[in-house]
Amino acid sequence: MTRPDDVLCTLKVSLGERSYPIHIGPGLLGDARWLVPHLAGRQVMVVTNETVAPLYLERLKAALPDDLTVRELVLPDGEATKTLESVERIWDALLEAGFNRRCTLVGLGGGVIGDMVGFAAACYQRGVAFVQVPTTLLSQVDSSVGGKTGVNHPRGKNMIGAFWQPRAVLIDTDTLSTLPSRELSAGLAEVIKYGLIRDEGFLAWLEARMADLRGLEPAALARAIERSCSLKAEIVAEDETEQGVRALLNLGHTFGHAIETHQGYGRWLHGEAVGTGMLMAAELSRRLGWLDEADVARTRATLEAAALPLAAPADMTGEDFLAIMRLDKKNLDDRLRLILLEGLGKACIHDETPPEILSRLLEDFPRR
Amino acid sequence: MTRPDDVLCTLKVSLGERSYPIHIGPGLLGDARWLVPHLAGRQVMVVTNETVAPLYLERLKAALPDDLTVRELVLPDGEATKTLESVERIWDALLEAGFNRRCTLVGLGGGVIGDMVGFAAACYQRGVAFVQVPTTLLSQVDSSVGGKTGVNHPRGKNMIGAFWQPRAVLIDTDTLSTLPSRELSAGLAEVIKYGLIRDEGFLAWLEARMADLRGLEPAALARAIERSCSLKAEIVAEDETEQGVRALLNLGHTFGHAIETHQGYGRWLHGEAVGTGMLMAAELSRRLGWLDEADVARTRATLEAAALPLAAPADMTGEDFLAIMRLDKKNLDDRLRLILLEGLGKACIHDETPPEILSRLLEDFPRR
Repeated sequence: MTRPDDVLCTLKVSLGERSYPIHIGPGLLGDARWLVPHLAGRQVMVVTNETVAPLYLERLKAALPDDLTVRELVLPDGEATKTLESVERIWDALLEAGFNRRCTLVGLGGGVIGDMVGFAAACYQRGVAFVQVPTTLLSQVDSSVGGKTGVNHPRGKNMIGAFWQPRAVLIDTDTLSTLPSRELSAGLAEVIKYGLIRDEGFLAWLEARMADLRGLEPAALARAIERSCSLKAEIVAEDETEQGVRALLNLGHTFGHAIETHQGYGRWLHGEAVGTGMLMAAELSRRLGWLDEADVARTRATLEAAALPLAAPADMTGEDFLAIMRLDKKNLDDRLRLILLEGLGKACIHDETPPEILSRLLEDFPRR
Repeated sequence: MTRPDDVLCTLKVSLGERSYPIHIGPGLLGDARWLVPHLAGRQVMVVTNETVAPLYLERLKAALPDDLTVRELVLPDGEATKTLESVERIWDALLEAGFNRRCTLVGLGGGVIGDMVGFAAACYQRGVAFVQVPTTLLSQVDSSVGGKTGVNHPRGKNMIGAFWQPRAVLIDTDTLSTLPSRELSAGLAEVIKYGLIRDEGFLAWLEARMADLRGLEPAALARAIERSCSLKAEIVAEDETEQGVRALLNLGHTFGHAIETHQGYGRWLHGEAVGTGMLMAAELSRRLGWLDEADVARTRATLEAAALPLAAPADMTGEDFLAIMRLDKKNLDDRLRLILLEGLGKACIHDETPPEILSRLLEDFPRR
């Protein structure tokens, strides 16, 4: 087993008084040094789900000193549990345990757990400490930065929530060993996204190290996660309120969201749909004259090396895509707003794609 | 009818980017000038209760330009409705109306409405604009400043909530004409509190103008509300995180809370219990040698002029008081923490009241 200190790295997210560290490396979960300094007081509530609990809950708890009051809550797994009712279960458990304003909530699990536990922390007694321990690659590179917490409402995803920063994020790369390989690939799609939108050098590094990443080589994982979080932190710092550059984080998401919606949530993983969506964005950028064939081929090869799908669903027509894309909330008035590529490592917001070029792409892009 | 501009005053609460104005005066509710500049976009949801709606909802809506999308939601009245379920009704209504992140929530009513609507705004799509239109004296001088929002949980008051600042607070002193006189007196208790803890000159002004206040003289009301909000704003600015000086706002509350708890919530109004509690704090301060007879007599006379009760409940023993006071969350370890007076206009935090002096006060303080 690799010892944490060998490949550990720490990234600081700078937000004034609300700045926090992201610690990344193998073995963090079982080592009190990484969690204990971030606890607000002596009361700790660990919230996790039924999939993650049997794998990592005991390891995390064993690392906590005996003189703390530690409670746990295990929720069902899955996006369907991301509801206000689940957050109410967390609040009920906190009150039943008599936890005060100096307690700390620890979210152990993927993006759903992180979003719910962060929201529970944001509103318990008007805000308590929160430590995030993301156990999926997607949540490690996405929800570690940005402070978005919340739950779904029957009428829309993430409709109820708050911005609430964690005290710390602990990313134990060992947890990826139990992640299903489709989910690992889906996480890699988001990693590749950061290279495509902002850092061509990182993209080149990813092409070179993709086999190591899929083989869960700890140093490669730590580097990929660190660079992804760091790029996201740069973008969020430039645009905390989501007016401009932060939209670039949606590369591939307009096409991808159309796939997810058409297919029904769950059949395609979010990262899989985003991966295909990024390839569609690259191909559209080529047709607009911004990328050349070699750029698109490089994008395709990188996604392929990550074992991501390279073709849209067989049963989805160009008109199916357009109908869903027209409802996207990024659009202004009647214009489709797309995130495209001016070059590899250089994304842009584009409102003026000629409709006939877009329609043709949606028709002739490969189907599975 | 007095025209707004005659006695209007505006207080700015300084919180950097989150600074906001409190406009105070008669007739504000029916005058678009005060509300419209604070709307974030063109979607407005007015939330009020069944008591206030028939009195003021139409007047407020009539002042809004026709080109806005205005919806309303009328909730039941009373502390029992201050629940997460009520806040969910607000979120459901917002989503049903298709309101986006640029909508504005207007809370028209007392403290319960303000706390719930503020919390709904804090968490709708991770935070939308909120304008507070408090219609009781207590909410005008208390919840206008401090940014506390939230709801009760079966296990405790205000357990779920957020800090969320309004875009503006509009205090129409005309709304006090429909306030039951017991509630007016209860609000005056909080006004007197600000004088007692921090401003002897304001206390003297209150003694001189109490009859005008009870007679709802607009200029006197505006001055009393402005000075109360301003004193609270000073205290909150010195101690945003409730570590120190903000505790002074609890003058009379430890005794008062014991009365409310013992009698069952609702039999004594909060302000009535706080009024009697402040007199108990003044009398205890005298026995500790900090106030003289004349100071206590002045305090009693001011409360009496505001038509507040001056004696504790007949069926409540000294031991009843102590049993409840020992549970107060301000206490550290086993010591009772009390807010007392070093002088009129000068409150202090006191951890070392000799138990026998406190017990004697609780036994021999007048009963009704």
